[in-house]
Amino acid sequence: MAGLSLRSVLLTGSNRGIGLELVKQLLGKSNPPQWVFATCRDPEGARGQELQNMVSKYPNLVMVKLDAMNPPSIKEAAWRVEEQLDSLGLNLVINNTGIFCNMSLATVDSEEMLRAYKTNVVGPMLVGQAFLPLLKKAAQGSSQNGLSCSKAAIVNISSFMGSIERVPETFSVPAISYRCSKAALNMLTLCQAPSYAEDGILCTAVHPGWVKTDTGTQAAHLPVDESVRGILAVLPTLSEKHSGSLWSWTGKTTPW
Amino acid sequence: MAGLSLRSVLLTGSNRGIGLELVKQLLGKSNPPQWVFATCRDPEGARGQELQNMVSKYPNLVMVKLDAMNPPSIKEAAWRVEEQLDSLGLNLVINNTGIFCNMSLATVDSEEMLRAYKTNVVGPMLVGQAFLPLLKKAAQGSSQNGLSCSKAAIVNISSFMGSIERVPETFSVPAISYRCSKAALNMLTLCQAPSYAEDGILCTAVHPGWVKTDTGTQAAHLPVDESVRGILAVLPTLSEKHSGSLWSWTGKTTPW
Repeated sequence: MAGLSLRSVLLTGSNRGIGLELVKQLLGKSNPPQWVFATCRDPEGARGQELQNMVSKYPNLVMVKLDAMNPPSIKEAAWRVEEQLDSLGLNLVINNTGIFCNMSLATVDSEEMLRAYKTNVVGPMLVGQAFLPLLKKAAQGSSQNGLSCSKAAIVNISSFMGSIERVPETFSVPAISYRCSKAALNMLTLCQAPSYAEDGILCTAVHPGWVKTDTGTQAAHLPVDESVRGILAVLPTLSEKHSGSLWSWTGKTTPW
Repeated sequence: MAGLSLRSVLLTGSNRGIGLELVKQLLGKSNPPQWVFATCRDPEGARGQELQNMVSKYPNLVMVKLDAMNPPSIKEAAWRVEEQLDSLGLNLVINNTGIFCNMSLATVDSEEMLRAYKTNVVGPMLVGQAFLPLLKKAAQGSSQNGLSCSKAAIVNISSFMGSIERVPETFSVPAISYRCSKAALNMLTLCQAPSYAEDGILCTAVHPGWVKTDTGTQAAHLPVDESVRGILAVLPTLSEKHSGSLWSWTGKTTPW
């Protein structure tokens, strides 16, 4: 866990599930970040309660309002974070927000397809664009060679359900809107990697496993703390060789 | 060309480019289909003029209004085709409608991402759903074993720009919204294949090459008639072994 050494990190969808656990484990590290920006749609609402309770305990935790479906809200969040960082850059953005709906081709409709795409693809793309200046600043201010998650990186939480090659083995859960959106998110990650490499930013996608959360349901077998420990162990091992890949929380690459 | 022997075919976006050329070559076959349903958004408008001129020459050509961005319009088109087929099924649906926009991550926005996804992914999905009863009827009425494009099939015109594996070699044209939508269309095709296999329907994606059309621009090197000849030569070679694959107009499989 000491491997991931960074000054600042921002997470989307951090009021529950994998996002909340990422915040907890990052704050609980022996070398915690100086700033953890935990974003969610409604930080002051009931669903942000657990994060609110943590703010009084951790002065390095900052809750920020960010709705990944709402472009102006993403820009406002970037201004808020920039202000807090006070001329320093942002090391790591974890695009964790995502929605899942298990509809087959017999039931899925236009609205559900667009809802999944907005949240799971367009949101992460806009977040990447909005925080690019701060990520660039972190890369420029770093003395490290090459790319790393400690220097400047975008990590998109994806899924092996978006792996086109693995459809035959996973199709017992059709989840059409989710699969199509995650295949597109994987493509986005592979486009972000060369686009942002010259700015010193590593871009990668991570499959967190099928996790016991509201999204993953209680039928899942992987406890969220185990998944997140795995993700946080994988991130410090990534370098420029790994930008534009899809990683599992176990540290293995997953086919597209 | 005699290989593709079918009673009825429906094409979307058939008033120009690859769609129009498909209509022309299908009608010009030595064994043409009994019905060619050429759909476009505005059959009576100026952009449908070339198709309109062909209707008087080919009694087996039927123009049908279908806007792939508009779910009710797709259902209306299915009723119109069902009426014309008079209790018989529809053999082949070619989802050809597609839009292309070459924006990089520095310029692409939410609106363009959603526009591409609606047209290139949600439209083909809705068309597949709406024409499913007619495709099933064709499969049920066929004495052929296995799956084929002559019996009952959905062919999605995709692109190797949507191939995640081929991003490194094709990224000189970033086209973010297009790539993400075509990766999702490839995933949709791979989901359609097992979903519709038990109904006797083959589902495949085809890469038409980089074609000299309004969409492909005049910088492309492949003449549209050559691409379409290739596609129409590939389709009759496909069977249940090939459902859920991405084919090039040259007859080669393309990686996801």
